[in-house]
Amino acid sequence: MRNWLSGLYFCFLVATPAFADDAVTTFSLDNGMDVVVIEDHRAPVVVQMVWYRAGSADEKPGVSGVAHFLEHLLFKGTETMEPGEFSATVARNGGSDNAFTSYDYTAYFQRVAADRLELMMKMESDRMVNLQLDEEDILTERDVIIEERNQRIENNPSALFREQQGAAQYLNHRYGVPIIGWQHEMVDLSLDDALDYYQTYYAPNNAILVVAGDVDPGQVRDLAETYYGVIPANPDLPERTRAQEPRQLAERRIYYQDARVAQPYLQRSYLAPERDSGDQEKAAALTILAEVLGDGTTSILNEKLQFDSRVAVYSGAYYGGLSLDDTTFNLTVVPAPDVTLEDAEKAMDDVIAGFLEDGFSQERLDRIKTQVRASEIYARDDVSALANRYGRGLTQGLTVEDIQAWPDILEQVTVDDVMAAARDLFAQDNNSVTGYITAQEVTQ
Amino acid sequence: MRNWLSGLYFCFLVATPAFADDAVTTFSLDNGMDVVVIEDHRAPVVVQMVWYRAGSADEKPGVSGVAHFLEHLLFKGTETMEPGEFSATVARNGGSDNAFTSYDYTAYFQRVAADRLELMMKMESDRMVNLQLDEEDILTERDVIIEERNQRIENNPSALFREQQGAAQYLNHRYGVPIIGWQHEMVDLSLDDALDYYQTYYAPNNAILVVAGDVDPGQVRDLAETYYGVIPANPDLPERTRAQEPRQLAERRIYYQDARVAQPYLQRSYLAPERDSGDQEKAAALTILAEVLGDGTTSILNEKLQFDSRVAVYSGAYYGGLSLDDTTFNLTVVPAPDVTLEDAEKAMDDVIAGFLEDGFSQERLDRIKTQVRASEIYARDDVSALANRYGRGLTQGLTVEDIQAWPDILEQVTVDDVMAAARDLFAQDNNSVTGYITAQEVTQ
Repeated sequence: MRNWLSGLYFCFLVATPAFADDAVTTFSLDNGMDVVVIEDHRAPVVVQMVWYRAGSADEKPGVSGVAHFLEHLLFKGTETMEPGEFSATVARNGGSDNAFTSYDYTAYFQRVAADRLELMMKMESDRMVNLQLDEEDILTERDVIIEERNQRIENNPSALFREQQGAAQYLNHRYGVPIIGWQHEMVDLSLDDALDYYQTYYAPNNAILVVAGDVDPGQVRDLAETYYGVIPANPDLPERTRAQEPRQLAERRIYYQDARVAQPYLQRSYLAPERDSGDQEKAAALTILAEVLGDGTTSILNEKLQFDSRVAVYSGAYYGGLSLDDTTFNLTVVPAPDVTLEDAEKAMDDVIAGFLEDGFSQERLDRIKTQVRASEIYARDDVSALANRYGRGLTQGLTVEDIQAWPDILEQVTVDDVMAAARDLFAQDNNSVTGYITAQEVTQ
Repeated sequence: MRNWLSGLYFCFLVATPAFADDAVTTFSLDNGMDVVVIEDHRAPVVVQMVWYRAGSADEKPGVSGVAHFLEHLLFKGTETMEPGEFSATVARNGGSDNAFTSYDYTAYFQRVAADRLELMMKMESDRMVNLQLDEEDILTERDVIIEERNQRIENNPSALFREQQGAAQYLNHRYGVPIIGWQHEMVDLSLDDALDYYQTYYAPNNAILVVAGDVDPGQVRDLAETYYGVIPANPDLPERTRAQEPRQLAERRIYYQDARVAQPYLQRSYLAPERDSGDQEKAAALTILAEVLGDGTTSILNEKLQFDSRVAVYSGAYYGGLSLDDTTFNLTVVPAPDVTLEDAEKAMDDVIAGFLEDGFSQERLDRIKTQVRASEIYARDDVSALANRYGRGLTQGLTVEDIQAWPDILEQVTVDDVMAAARDLFAQDNNSVTGYITAQEVTQ
């Protein structure tokens, strides 16, 4: 329960269902809460998600991890619910529930039989404003998140490496701070820190309700008005503006050594534009570029580095286009035994240079688009994935129209668009961080 | 007027007068304002300084430069003074005035004939709380600070390089953001931003009055009570805690290219401890280390790199020990013509390695201490420098006792202390950033 999304660095887009066909109804309550209803009557189940437009990148300085900490604390009690009663009630009703935190959002969801939706709304709306926390809750749950960090980050050299790379990538923006928090700040997180974040961001005018499944939009509206509509808006909700990046003027390199590293590899990240509302074309081209260069066995990096020259045992490209602010485009190469990181990097750079010169074929683009379309079928089978897609898009600066337009925008990307995006991206050495992770020192 | 202190990166300690002999009187007003009086009756002049325990590192995210911007705006009018009248009045009374902003403080001072002290206090206490600003002031003065940035930073490749290096050095702490501000944030600084900073930090309980010169402590106390003592404390003054650095786990390198660079060079910075109250010994050893390694023509880097191997045309080491939070220790090498940056760096690393092995002589330490003592004579001649020393120390976490104890602490540093500090420092590759600045791309 309560998973933590590892976020920007290894999150990339593959599935792109044709949302334009979704049976989606949207409306807003008088208090400013947005509601999205996705009808799917194939099975008598419903998914309720509440998404807050607040994630780790909305935290104040010095309290990193408080967004995720609060996500844990929301499973404590309210004025009418005992600690733990929320999830126990969901389970007793045959459902499952979970929550997750990322840079740009915190989300809570339950999947239950459709006739239990009212109970879910009653409970979820209750903890939006009636959370009861005491010092004891802080002490016990803080130990839990610190242990979570130990397991996910401290015991994982790659995760520590990604944190250092992220901090080097972002000179000013809060995306350089890990979602789970810096260890030295987590240990000092207090009741006041949690309540300050809760009282600032947990309010209907900062939330999106997504209900997907065997429901009727009119019925959802009635229930939403009954349970969420009575909660007053927070008149002091701050404008959602974060400190943006300055011009990045110097290429950076980092060298992370950890005796636990079994397999050295290199990763390069470039600062890259994200999907903006009404302006997703560049991000669509970068999405296709990541697939052309580095997704799967037929990608260009794979063909050149694994099959032709056998320099690498793995290579990949990832682009996380869904992001409120500037995101990254990442390249990874794991060299073959006896190949140094320097040689692997040189080979990677040669592949990129060759790609910029030679381009790629229309056939390759068509093949990738076929894969993209195929992934829609899978995505539409899963009502949770659909709900998730809307929640993520809406909390990261997009509209329902943007989300629905995305498959068509991807479909219209041309070879020239991809090459133009590639030339822009790879010309920006100053926006890049190249990281080596090794078990011991390498010659630089 | 209104100089901007370039701050951490090129600020280092040389002069170390024996403050224990200073005729210093300290007291606090009932509203929490601290007062330091330094008597010096050799000339009928007085220096008044007001130091705020607030600098650029106390700014909120997204408004970098607002501390320095407000420093400019303090020369606008109050309820009883016209814009510009402050400095005009000082000048008409035969005095001079100025102000400066750094990471940890903002300070205002006037130097006038001793009988004008009351007038200075009247004006300085007035603008502590009665500043009158309008949108027009913001527009005109914002252009001034943007132009100041253009001149000092944008037109100076070394300054741009230092900004990028500072941002790479600090992963979490606000010292990674330039004092003058990121250009893209400066252009949006607003009246609200300036007033928010002013109302938060400009208050007697966040200020230190330093009066140095031909004055009597009793008279200063009477005047201070009359003018500053009547201003209420700010009950909402925030605790002075900033986001601290996480463990730095990966050595970093940056490559800054700028066609305007006439002479390439390299700079390496290490995160290093600063002078802490009651705990200045480590900082004293690092202060001496910087002098041993890199200050002046007889330093070890100089001897080895300029005279022996002729690899460099300049080398230096700098340590900025006065800092509220973690500071840096910096090495710089400017290679001779035909020597690459890589070779120069290798030569620098060899000198450091040799130094760690061989140490240095007691004679060298004695010579440095003689220089340190000699610099006292010069420093004590200048009443402004004395006032400055107390203001800087008191706003950066030290007490009057710490400031007065510093020369003795420096005096007691041994060769072993310096070598222990050097071993600690240079073992921390993961705390370091090595930067190359060139006119064009270098092989990495």
